[in-house]
Formats: sequence, structure tokens, C-alpha cells
Amino acid sequence: MTSGTKAKIEMSAGHALRCIECGEELERAAAEFRCPRCGDLLEVVYPAWAESEAQTLVWASDLKATWRERRVSFQSQDASGVWRFRELLPRVAEGVISLREGNTPVFELPGSARSAGVGRLLAKHQGMNPTGSFKDTGMTVAISVARQEGFSWVACASTGNTSASMAAYAAQGGLRSLVLIPAGKIAWGKLSQALDYGALTCQLDTDFDGCLRILTELVRRHPIYLLNSINPYRLEGQKTAAIELLEQLDWQVPEHIIVPGGNLGNCSALGKGLEELRRLDLIARLPKLSVIQAEGANALVRTLREGGGKRLVAVQAETAATAIRIGNPVSWKKAVRVLEATGGRCEQVSEAEIAVAKAEIGRDGVGCEPASAVTLAGLKKLVRQGFVQPQEQVVLILTGHLLKDPEYTLKFHRRELLPDAAEGERRSLDTYRRAPLEVEAKVEAVLRVLEQAEKSHGAK
Amino acid sequence: MTSGTKAKIEMSAGHALRCIECGEELERAAAEFRCPRCGDLLEVVYPAWAESEAQTLVWASDLKATWRERRVSFQSQDASGVWRFRELLPRVAEGVISLREGNTPVFELPGSARSAGVGRLLAKHQGMNPTGSFKDTGMTVAISVARQEGFSWVACASTGNTSASMAAYAAQGGLRSLVLIPAGKIAWGKLSQALDYGALTCQLDTDFDGCLRILTELVRRHPIYLLNSINPYRLEGQKTAAIELLEQLDWQVPEHIIVPGGNLGNCSALGKGLEELRRLDLIARLPKLSVIQAEGANALVRTLREGGGKRLVAVQAETAATAIRIGNPVSWKKAVRVLEATGGRCEQVSEAEIAVAKAEIGRDGVGCEPASAVTLAGLKKLVRQGFVQPQEQVVLILTGHLLKDPEYTLKFHRRELLPDAAEGERRSLDTYRRAPLEVEAKVEAVLRVLEQAEKSHGAK
Repeated sequence: MTSGTKAKIEMSAGHALRCIECGEELERAAAEFRCPRCGDLLEVVYPAWAESEAQTLVWASDLKATWRERRVSFQSQDASGVWRFRELLPRVAEGVISLREGNTPVFELPGSARSAGVGRLLAKHQGMNPTGSFKDTGMTVAISVARQEGFSWVACASTGNTSASMAAYAAQGGLRSLVLIPAGKIAWGKLSQALDYGALTCQLDTDFDGCLRILTELVRRHPIYLLNSINPYRLEGQKTAAIELLEQLDWQVPEHIIVPGGNLGNCSALGKGLEELRRLDLIARLPKLSVIQAEGANALVRTLREGGGKRLVAVQAETAATAIRIGNPVSWKKAVRVLEATGGRCEQVSEAEIAVAKAEIGRDGVGCEPASAVTLAGLKKLVRQGFVQPQEQVVLILTGHLLKDPEYTLKFHRRELLPDAAEGERRSLDTYRRAPLEVEAKVEAVLRVLEQAEKSHGAK
Repeated sequence: MTSGTKAKIEMSAGHALRCIECGEELERAAAEFRCPRCGDLLEVVYPAWAESEAQTLVWASDLKATWRERRVSFQSQDASGVWRFRELLPRVAEGVISLREGNTPVFELPGSARSAGVGRLLAKHQGMNPTGSFKDTGMTVAISVARQEGFSWVACASTGNTSASMAAYAAQGGLRSLVLIPAGKIAWGKLSQALDYGALTCQLDTDFDGCLRILTELVRRHPIYLLNSINPYRLEGQKTAAIELLEQLDWQVPEHIIVPGGNLGNCSALGKGLEELRRLDLIARLPKLSVIQAEGANALVRTLREGGGKRLVAVQAETAATAIRIGNPVSWKKAVRVLEATGGRCEQVSEAEIAVAKAEIGRDGVGCEPASAVTLAGLKKLVRQGFVQPQEQVVLILTGHLLKDPEYTLKFHRRELLPDAAEGERRSLDTYRRAPLEVEAKVEAVLRVLEQAEKSHGAK
């Protein structure tokens, strides 16, 4: 280790919270994680970095080597694909609550690449995290902070993935958890997780945004730690996916990274991670980070088109991609800045486009939940627009595991999804639909089905 | 690298298939993977090892170092937690079909340890594999062999996990897949995976054993590669979980490893892996490997008690732990030998014991599917019997992810599971049951629920 290493190890020693609008710096946030002066969002900053910027180049090679070395260790902090990058994270003196999150694979999607019209397509699958979604990477940081600050209860409003993750980490850390979910609007699999991990789960007759409003009021009145993505520590953990991705690409920066947009915390986090890597000279330039939304939950699209990116245009969210059914995204301003900083675009895709894209990702042997598939559907649009060139390197961020929403998949294959699709759309959907066949329990019957499948495949 | 390394790299050069009963050696198996002479099971053997056994001690330290070094690589074979151990696997010249399987975490289960009455309890979570079950570790090997042998179709009979895994790997490798499942008897999540990955899925009005009988006949009559666990290459991949576990324990052998028993391929595979580690002097002694079954699918229990371990006592399987609902386990003879070789026990547990154990594993923030929870339920019995001592190190093998069967979890919490449970059982179950509460969408209403929960918690 060189002398730069010691300086580096100190990097995370001090962090502060800073308002993204008025610049107010705080040591500790109020319960609802808003700037006490102007009410805007907070972000985590590391004042020590600025003092040490002369050492940046030393750190760069040191950090990469240190992070790499940790991968052979089974020690808790090293084995975590989040805490392995702890030089760029808040220090948690009490010890971290970890489920060995991160370390997610990058898959090739050859069939999806052909369908989108690009030469090579990669997917960083955050759905391979322990509870099946990218939320785990942020939860390990925020919930470790919660315990350090002495809370015994944590809470979130959720479309499902956040509550599953929070409940698991709370259970791991010996904390109790409260979940507010919109009645009847979250996928079963996700609800089953919160219950299994012992969360106190309340279904409210409102939407996600309504749940979040109630919770924000609740944390002001009761000592309970807010774990929605307005909590900037969540985003600190989530930013590590960008670091890990670049490491997996041997620090070769792709031209494009494409991410789903719901509450917009994830694109904000990934953007922050990329900008920090650039600032510390760990990468030479920024990839374009683009955000894709469902047409029925397109608040960021409208914020940019109608509000010029200056004011939020909230919508009444409706999409079968439940993980991004959010109409009033809390991190919209951070997301707008990331799009500006990286030169990415924001697009929207239809329900049928999502369903087809999800099926294509499945046929590559990878699979994902519907919200993740907006990335491939959006890529197709960006290629058609000429924004993505066929020879450029594109990485899709898949945010949730296929098993997060089996109902959607079954409905799709049973033709119960999108029954009113237009003729052209229905043809696209039908290409991938494969309901299970009921076959007589005899060898001859199965053999006939098999031969029929071989024949129709050969005829194509 | 020492001179031993080259010899080691050659270790997997030649493998053969050998009948476990009559010892017949084959270069290539018939379609149904049975000994052509006596009809018994085959296993993969490595004749080169015997010739080189003098070098074993050199290999031992070399292998451990080589395997460790590979963990920092993102190259496909090194990044796989199976192929990283390729010196102990068949060589696949055509390149492997991998989804970055293996690399699964070992979690502490402090609450479950208290409940079982042991000091410390670890769980190796094979449900953290890409498709959510341990099947992936075997599938990557067997399906790579299938492609190398020139097959364009693969097939399996399945209670769900095998089909999900097979379909994913087939899609990855550009092969087509046929799945036979018992109508109405597999968990939805698993079915949705097979469909999403594009498998030709046939529901037959019979049970798992009936599906397997039909498929065995089918592969004799049609060029389609059989991927049930009678395929010994599946077991070769699955054995790597034992190697990886020992590596994670820094090669300190635990006293006990406990695994669920359905078709009995997994305990056979883990046993084979442990015995090979011992033979190559990579570990100094064997842990006791015990197998736990559901009472309603207790073929191995009865085979040992009524058949003296000499003849299979098949049963009509019935349990809500669908992944082990198998009455005619194909690998029973291999399993009996593993129990004998390691000194492990075989036990059975009730449906209520499974449900409670599953809930306890969830409360530790880990979670699993019902079949995995038999391990904890079984451990409690083994402790009561005095077979497991409180200070001994125990590792449970959790085989499937919580998200594999959300219906079971929801039914449990909604009190729809085991409605006829006896009074004592119901009290145990109710301890963990937490149906979602329907709460008015108002801060005050949520606050009341929260205060009530704090009060009842404090009262305990």
C-alpha cells in the first residue's frame, strides 16, 4: 500500500448532509429528511474529499486495487458489494447490517440486442440482490445509520420492493418495521416478503403517494426512522451499483446506461455514483444515463416537457409495472440534474411495449420484473430516435427479479394481460405467449406435442 | 504456482460414468442415465485422480489458492461459483452455459439458533442462485454437457424448481426445453419462470413421479436430453456447494450439515463433494450430513426404518412443501450411502413444524421456501434426540428463495394454512402470523396501530 492509502481510508471519516437547492449543510437531518431552511432534498457529501483533491490520482489506482482485493474475503463488510466500496460511503461506527447485498452479475442479452438493433447489450441485474431488488443496496446503508442513531423502529411507504427489503434488514438488525402499502396495488410476492420478515404491515385505501404523505407526517410526530428514498443514505448505498458496474467493465465507460424511473431515487443514486467516480478520476468521462418511465406513470417525462425541468408535473399513476407506479416522484429534481449532467434522455413506453420487452429479456434466460423491462422497451425508442447508435455499448439496469411478480407473468402467458391491445400489439405479444398445455398423462400425447413444436419451430 | 499445479489442471481431463452398484464404467450414458448392465444409478468418476494420489497434498494447498484467486475475476468460468472449482468437474470443451450461479452467502440465524437450542447456527442459502434455487448449480454443468453432446432439446419432470432452472439455462445456451409438471401441484412463481424463459410446458394429470416415468420413456424414443437428477452431471455441479461452503468456513469442518430430502439428489451431491474433498485431503474429516423430509413425503425415512436401507419404500407424497413432494426418490441409494459414510441421520417433520421453522428463518431476516425450512424443523428434533450438541457447529442448507412460493407465505399469515392444526400447534403458528392490517388512510389511524404494537411488544 502506498502513502495515498491512508489518506484514502480516511475519506469517509466525515460526511455531512447538504440541501441540493440552497446548499445548507447539516450534521443530522430532521425526521422527514428535508432541508429545514427551504424544504428541498438533502444529499450526502464528503467535505474531506475537497481538502484532499490533490491526492486524487493516488487514490484512484489504490482504491481500485483495494476494492478488488476485498473480493476474496468472506468478512461481512468485504463480502458486501456495497460496503466493499466503503471509502465512498458514510462511516457506520456501530457495525453494518448486511445481507451480502450487491455483487450482482452483468449478463449478455443477445436476443434483446437484436430486437433493439444494437450490436451488444449488457444487463446489470440488481434483482439478484438478496430480497430480489436493487433496494437492498440502499437499505443496508440507511438501516445501519438508523441503528447507529438509536432508532428501534423503521418505516416506509412502498409499492412492495422497499418494504420487502426494509423488513429483511430490520429483522437482521434487530429493529422493528412498519410498512404502509396501497391496498390491492402491490405484487403478492413482495407482500409475502414483508410479512415473512415480521413487518407490521398496514394496507391503506390510497395510492403510493398517499401512503408516503401519511408516513411523512407520522415520522414528525413519532420516533420512527423514515426509509423511503427521500432518505439520502438509501441513495448512497444504491450509488455503489454504478461503481460495481464500472469495475465489472474493467473501468471502460459504456456510452449508455438505462434505468427505470419511478420515484427516481435510483437514477439519482447511480448518477451521483458516476459523478463521484469522475470527480475522483476513477473514470475518464461520464456515460449518458437515461431514464425510462411507463406512459401511465410519466411524471418525469411531463416535468421535462411541460415544466421545463423546473417544476414537478405530478400525475395519477397507473401501470401494471407496480414497482414504478408512482405519480409524485420525490427525487425528480435530482433526476433532472443527472440527466443534464450526463446528457441522458427521458422517455416513456406503453404497457404493451413493457410486456414484450419483459418477454424478450426472459427469452435471453435472464428474466426480470415488469418495471425493469421498461429499460429495453425504452432502448428500442432511443435507437429509433438515433440517440443510441448500434455500435455503442449499452447497459440496462434491471431492478427486480422475475420472481417478484409471478402474477404478471402468468397473466401475460394466459392472455389475461392487455386484453384490449390493438391488432399489431397483440401480434407482438402473442409471439412470446406460451400458456402451459394440458396434456394427457401418456408418452404418446407428450411426443405429439413435442413433434408439433419441432415442426412449427422448423417452419419459422 | 508450483509443479503440482499443472498436474492439478489436468485433473478433470478425463471423467467416466460408473454404476454405483455393479461398477460398470461407461464413456457415455444411455438416454435415461441408467447402467445398461444392472439398471442402477450412474455417478461421475475421475480416473486420473487415482493415478496422481501421491500428489494430493501438493494439490490441496494449490487448489485452495487457485480457487481463491479466481474470485477476483469477472471472467465467465471464474465468476461462476460452480466452474471456479472446475478441477473437480467434467471438462466441457465447447464452453459452459452459465448464469453466474453459486457464490451463495452463508448467513447467521441467531433467532433460529435460540429456538433450536444451539449456540450458533449458519445457513448456506442456495436460494440466492440466479433462478432462486440450488438447481442452478447442477444445471450449469448438465446443460453444458447436453450442448457439447449435440442436443438441441432438453427436458425434465419437475415440481417447479428444476423446470425454472432448466428453462433459464436452455434459453441462455440457445437450446429448447420441454417441461412436464403435475397439474395444479407446483408453486405459481416457479411455473411463471418456466413460461417466461420460453419452455414448452405440459401439465399432466399425474404426480411428479408419474411425470418422470413418462419422460424416461420419452427420452428413449426421441433425441431429447434428460435433465432430472438421475443425470449425474447435475449432481456434479451441486456438489460444489459443499466445496464453496467449506471455503467460506476457512476449511474448518462443521460438525453437522443438514439438508432437505425430496428426490435426494442434493444430499447425494453434497455428500459426494464432501467425500471428494476428504479424499483429496482438502479437509481432515467429514461433517455429519443429515437429511430431513416432510412426514407426508418420507420415502427415505421409511426406506431406512422398514427397508433397512436396502430397498426403496416408495410413498404417495403429500406436503405443502412442494419442492420435496416426491414419493419415489431416484437417488435414494446414493443418499443411504452418504448417510452411512458421514454418520448423518434421517428425520421427518410435520407440516406445522415446517411452517413454524419457515417463519423463524424469516424472522432472522433471511427467509426461504417451505422445503428449505425442514432443515431447521429437523435440527430441533436432532437436538432433542441429543444427536446434535448445543455447542456443535451446524450449517443448514436452504435450497430455495422465499419468493419461490409467496402463496404459501400469504396463506400462512392469513391463517388459511393448516386450518385443522391442533391447539398447541396453532399457538406456535399464531406466534408468527401477521396478516396485513386494513387501516384508514389517516395519520392518526396508523399512529394508533403503531402504539398498539409497541405496547403489546413491551408487554411480552
